[in-house]
Amino acid sequence: MAKKRSLSGIKPTGFPHLGNYLGMIRPAIDLQDEYESFYFAADYHALTTVHDPKALRHSVYELTAYFLAFGLDPEKAAFFRQSDVPEVTELTWMLDCVTHMGLLERAHAYKAAKDEGREKEISHGLFSYPVLMASDILIYDSDIVPVGKDQIQHVEMTRDMAQKFNHAFGGDYLKLPEAKVRDDVAVVPGIDGRKMSKSYNNLIEPLLPPKKLKKQCMSIETDSTPLEDPKDPDTCNVFALYKLFSSADEIMEMRENYEGGDYGYGHAKLALYEKLVDYFAPYREKYVDLREDEEYLEEVLAHGAAKVRPVVEGVMDRVRSATGLGRP
Amino acid sequence: MAKKRSLSGIKPTGFPHLGNYLGMIRPAIDLQDEYESFYFAADYHALTTVHDPKALRHSVYELTAYFLAFGLDPEKAAFFRQSDVPEVTELTWMLDCVTHMGLLERAHAYKAAKDEGREKEISHGLFSYPVLMASDILIYDSDIVPVGKDQIQHVEMTRDMAQKFNHAFGGDYLKLPEAKVRDDVAVVPGIDGRKMSKSYNNLIEPLLPPKKLKKQCMSIETDSTPLEDPKDPDTCNVFALYKLFSSADEIMEMRENYEGGDYGYGHAKLALYEKLVDYFAPYREKYVDLREDEEYLEEVLAHGAAKVRPVVEGVMDRVRSATGLGRP
Repeated sequence: MAKKRSLSGIKPTGFPHLGNYLGMIRPAIDLQDEYESFYFAADYHALTTVHDPKALRHSVYELTAYFLAFGLDPEKAAFFRQSDVPEVTELTWMLDCVTHMGLLERAHAYKAAKDEGREKEISHGLFSYPVLMASDILIYDSDIVPVGKDQIQHVEMTRDMAQKFNHAFGGDYLKLPEAKVRDDVAVVPGIDGRKMSKSYNNLIEPLLPPKKLKKQCMSIETDSTPLEDPKDPDTCNVFALYKLFSSADEIMEMRENYEGGDYGYGHAKLALYEKLVDYFAPYREKYVDLREDEEYLEEVLAHGAAKVRPVVEGVMDRVRSATGLGRP
Repeated sequence: MAKKRSLSGIKPTGFPHLGNYLGMIRPAIDLQDEYESFYFAADYHALTTVHDPKALRHSVYELTAYFLAFGLDPEKAAFFRQSDVPEVTELTWMLDCVTHMGLLERAHAYKAAKDEGREKEISHGLFSYPVLMASDILIYDSDIVPVGKDQIQHVEMTRDMAQKFNHAFGGDYLKLPEAKVRDDVAVVPGIDGRKMSKSYNNLIEPLLPPKKLKKQCMSIETDSTPLEDPKDPDTCNVFALYKLFSSADEIMEMRENYEGGDYGYGHAKLALYEKLVDYFAPYREKYVDLREDEEYLEEVLAHGAAKVRPVVEGVMDRVRSATGLGRP
């Protein structure tokens, strides 16, 4: 039986941090064995916020390089640039014509902007990106879309638009995708203890040069228990992060260190740093090599785009005959 | 000096009526000598209301056939199908990302829907079509856009979006078009005396077979002045329509008939019908021949699309490097 097709779009907005890595990148890459996996660097989406061509192109290269470094196999999967399939914008228009404004007004991002009184100032791109996102999914006849819980709404909206289209034009032209909800990973705390997130500026970025990574690890906020005193590992961010990359024995040892006293937070941070630098060293090395070779990265992207092209053409043929657009 | 470029998009929504002919078609075709004229059949726009592929394709053929019949020269001008340039939807996305929601909420069509309490039910296509329209204009580096007074807003919105784009990406990537406002033609009354308009179902369609055209002319509403009595030509719809296609002498003669008595509205309607059937006979004949030859119509459309392609590619190269989208 043919493998089901999985679709992941990733907004290229900078270097990966531990939260990205554990929450999205690793689970996404792990799908490449079980599914026919398509991944794209969502540069059309990034355009809602990035208005610098060099920065946009570089962020696509970065994203491609770290996916490859983390083990994405461009022969097994297809990794490509969203804008190498400009047909998504054409399908977006077709979906626009069957999508009620009410549906888009219920989208989380727009509602948040409205609640803050910013709805007139936000760009139409931000308002309408759920339609582009639906088009991204539907144009590849995707079976499943791996998402976090907060993105289930997008897959539901996509199914809604596909159904509206199929109903309006009287046929099963668009395949309805299923959301594949990721198991919650343990929350990854940032250096300030809040959830690690770009918007909090509290990141640990494991592909950074070791010196910078060390600096990030050493800036994790802790309480002011004196070095000599025993400490509670279960309320400490350093310990929480250490656990995510360590074996049961290592975790037990660290716990004993905390509870025994004469073990400072500085020691724990250093242990975390060493753990991370070891764990990510091979990835980092690969990443650095790949990132330098933009020609190769373009080859990978072009190869990915060529792999998905027949699927795109099949779907576009269907929707163009369904609507009567384009040359007969 | 090179000719300036003029751009006209026409929504293919059925047979032309006298209001279309005098108000838009004739003035649009007359531009082909003075300007490098691009005309497209706006099938993407039609998709907001037409969900029948056969009807959509046929309406494009109809539109093409009657423009050719009325004298559009496909060698001088370019006549093409909007969806043969799918890049307009890609440029639309780029414009979406620099267009505030507030701008679109001020568009007449959306405001009208809102005033009627229908804003949640209208399609996103209807809400966002000013962006597609801007893209239609900007993708051809258009110098002028011939419009009626009610469409000036669209050209203003287009200029606004082009300026926002140029500002966001720091360069004169998109050319700012000028509206060329058509002189008001005398209002063309429909058979019920209101402005001739599809939405009032009060049309006279001069390319119809003579029998049907006659029926439309004979249904023009008049008052009930008896045949024998003198009549006031200046309050009569028949006379108003007759004037639009007749010479000064003919108009004078008809006026005398009205004022002299013993001349019924039936006589006037017949005279109008004969005037119209003669005036439009050569166009109608050409139209019928052309409409039957879909292969030829496709050739004309393909020829038009090929003519505009280099312009499109030039503009798309500019905006793709400006934004960083697509392959470098």
